[in-house]
Amino acid sequence: MDKKNEAITSRDVDFAKWYTDVCRKAELMDYSSVKGFINYLPYGYGIWEAIKEFADRLFKEKGAENVYLPSVIPMSMFDREKEHVEGFAPEILVATIGGGKRLEDPLVIRPTSEILFSDLYKHLVKSYRDLPKRFNQWCSVVRWEKTTRPFLRGSEFLWQEGHCLFETEKEANDNALEMLEVYDRIGRECLAIPFLKGKKSAHETFAGAVATYSIEALMHDGKALQAGTTHYLGTGFAKAGGIAFQGRNNALETPHQSSWGISTRLIGAVIMVHGDDNGLVLPPMVAPIQAVIVGIKSQDEKVKEACRGLYEELKRAGIRVKLDLDPSKTPGWKFAEYEMKGVPLRIEIGPRDIESGLSGLAIRFSGEKRSVKLNEIAHQIPLLLREIQEGMYLAAKSRLEASIVDVETLEELKATLEKGGYARMAYCGEEECELKIKELTLGGTARCIYQENVEGKTCPVCGKKATVVSYFAKAY
Amino acid sequence: MDKKNEAITSRDVDFAKWYTDVCRKAELMDYSSVKGFINYLPYGYGIWEAIKEFADRLFKEKGAENVYLPSVIPMSMFDREKEHVEGFAPEILVATIGGGKRLEDPLVIRPTSEILFSDLYKHLVKSYRDLPKRFNQWCSVVRWEKTTRPFLRGSEFLWQEGHCLFETEKEANDNALEMLEVYDRIGRECLAIPFLKGKKSAHETFAGAVATYSIEALMHDGKALQAGTTHYLGTGFAKAGGIAFQGRNNALETPHQSSWGISTRLIGAVIMVHGDDNGLVLPPMVAPIQAVIVGIKSQDEKVKEACRGLYEELKRAGIRVKLDLDPSKTPGWKFAEYEMKGVPLRIEIGPRDIESGLSGLAIRFSGEKRSVKLNEIAHQIPLLLREIQEGMYLAAKSRLEASIVDVETLEELKATLEKGGYARMAYCGEEECELKIKELTLGGTARCIYQENVEGKTCPVCGKKATVVSYFAKAY
Repeated sequence: MDKKNEAITSRDVDFAKWYTDVCRKAELMDYSSVKGFINYLPYGYGIWEAIKEFADRLFKEKGAENVYLPSVIPMSMFDREKEHVEGFAPEILVATIGGGKRLEDPLVIRPTSEILFSDLYKHLVKSYRDLPKRFNQWCSVVRWEKTTRPFLRGSEFLWQEGHCLFETEKEANDNALEMLEVYDRIGRECLAIPFLKGKKSAHETFAGAVATYSIEALMHDGKALQAGTTHYLGTGFAKAGGIAFQGRNNALETPHQSSWGISTRLIGAVIMVHGDDNGLVLPPMVAPIQAVIVGIKSQDEKVKEACRGLYEELKRAGIRVKLDLDPSKTPGWKFAEYEMKGVPLRIEIGPRDIESGLSGLAIRFSGEKRSVKLNEIAHQIPLLLREIQEGMYLAAKSRLEASIVDVETLEELKATLEKGGYARMAYCGEEECELKIKELTLGGTARCIYQENVEGKTCPVCGKKATVVSYFAKAY
Repeated sequence: MDKKNEAITSRDVDFAKWYTDVCRKAELMDYSSVKGFINYLPYGYGIWEAIKEFADRLFKEKGAENVYLPSVIPMSMFDREKEHVEGFAPEILVATIGGGKRLEDPLVIRPTSEILFSDLYKHLVKSYRDLPKRFNQWCSVVRWEKTTRPFLRGSEFLWQEGHCLFETEKEANDNALEMLEVYDRIGRECLAIPFLKGKKSAHETFAGAVATYSIEALMHDGKALQAGTTHYLGTGFAKAGGIAFQGRNNALETPHQSSWGISTRLIGAVIMVHGDDNGLVLPPMVAPIQAVIVGIKSQDEKVKEACRGLYEELKRAGIRVKLDLDPSKTPGWKFAEYEMKGVPLRIEIGPRDIESGLSGLAIRFSGEKRSVKLNEIAHQIPLLLREIQEGMYLAAKSRLEASIVDVETLEELKATLEKGGYARMAYCGEEECELKIKELTLGGTARCIYQENVEGKTCPVCGKKATVVSYFAKAY
């Protein structure tokens, strides 16, 4: 690996600063002049486009259909959903003037679209024959945030929100679990991120939901990041929204609902799971540039010809490839630059490589260098990109697994969470004990709970019988 | 062709009613509970997804890079651009409350993003080495409209806006012309719509632009629809936005700007160019369902087997295919339904077809029926879809060409525009004469102008020497 990029703070010195350095220097985003809102630049937006394309294909395979609903919600409709309003009211942006006139019914800029989907379904769903409905929307949402952080928390972000209706509880809950599996697959095959996945504790369940499931990623600093959630919402939202259908026995029934969402937060997860002190490290599946060809003595005609030929060949093979023959920068500068931008694979071609028929390849994530026969590169690269993708996933998986420590006492729990990573511990599952744990550990929360291996164990807080095993961690 | 679908008003009886009937009955959209805003349903949104995918690929081939900028613009920034504000002020939606507090600087919900792109470029562009910049954004915009019409005019629509910066006037104007060609290609190869394309008259030029170019489609009722525009903006916007760069000779220079956009209005164009009295007629490239397999006696095991086999085969071939074995509806009902939804190709398979080894194909746009060997269908369909796509384009092209009438006097102009279609006429090119023509013809406007074949001709309004030939039409 080339020497440390001085423009970026080391992770162990200041992880938060390292993170924003990477976001800025790699040109993923830029702060906009609108406070709390960012500009998604091509290199950052390109990651989102790759995630979106991958996810959208999987959603459609599961029967999801895309729609687009209004970006605003009349305040009168918003106010109807009490529980919902309480959760979102402090962070809404409200339009009060339209076409130069004061609006009688102000419009809330969509923070999430439960209300609008309910309103749509009320019109579309009349009979069990109209079910199931599996609508999904790719859009932006606005939530008025005081403290912001690129991709992790901001006043506007991009996401998808799936809102589905089913005849029965089983179908709706199964859908929430099925989409959790889809999210897990997005992590595995696209982001190279292994997720801890499972049910949320009562305390962490979405307001109004019967059950919330989540995928959790482990960041380099040992903190967890909730990377997506799916919910089985029961019939509460549907009842409040006045949705009813004629069932198979002619009686009027209320449909069961599920919802699921992932957002541009996943870009933050990719940065913090894979990045290192030299900057970004991107898995090939989401990398806007999968391979860069750097010409050494780039004005040499033979070098130009060899580089261009390879560039065209890789492009034809569907690789997202960049050719750099810019004579105004040194190869060393370029190497550091493409490392900082996390390009998975760098190919160096100079006069000596052409003479020897061997070219140098540098693999970003492992720092490994290889010599490959020039006339075999085009054939090798797709295989190598797959190898990198898998290698990154397995490396992250080892780190995740190594971070899990079994604990039984509050002292052990506290010590483990201080170091970072997950502490696996049985407890009673009650909100009260969870809050005490959070206080004691300065922020440790139950990330996912599992109803297994609790036999004979007790809750270290209240001393009652343990009902669940939880993975505790500090989280973003 | 099967008999007229009674649920839809005839085009010649009431074209406006026919249009909304088709939008609703074919489930392209639904009116939402937010006044002026529509719900894009899967079948309508699917058309937009197909257009977007096709267009995005072409844009990227031309060097465009996608970004995402904030959905709100501070009023203080908005007010800075005088000319711009005048154009958009009457139709903006303004947020005044955020996080429960009154905003000191209210936020305009983005009606278009010139201001935000300028603000971004001001930070990104410092030297001629940073140019050109070709950023594009896919997003929704809000414009407070009093009268709305699905896809044609509404308080919110989906679009793309390309905003580009160049060193020279030539590059920027060339980009506006190049993107006009791209839009034309989208019409030809994706929408099966031939466009009239060219420059706008002074009167129809975008406020603040040096030149506006547009693509214009001819609707069935003889009216033109502006389907997309590209602009050469000169240096005015860049100057107002404070964008400057160090030129090749070290002097500070102002970049030249272009912009270009198409929107969900194109869905309206597809409906009104191709639709007929039985409903929608979709070109295969944008059809969410390209072919439907309808089983006749659909509960017959052999029919099921044959239908499912073909369905899987077509799916593997990348065809967007639907299989309908629903026993609760008659084949006749289904035929009318899929016709109304504009599915390009219908394949009927019943016990007799299996016996004879021949299956019936119905082509939506021509009404033609064909018998094809069952074991050759899977191979035939991709070819047939291409044939349909091309046939629809050529048919629309014939209609467009037949609608163009050369006229020389105001009487001829008026008579031609009353019938519908384009009147081609030389005139002086001055705004004053254009306004008189609009008044006299009850709404006729110059759609595109060309600086050719004007020798010896005079303007029929003012009597001065003609400088341009214009295609006049009434327009949406």
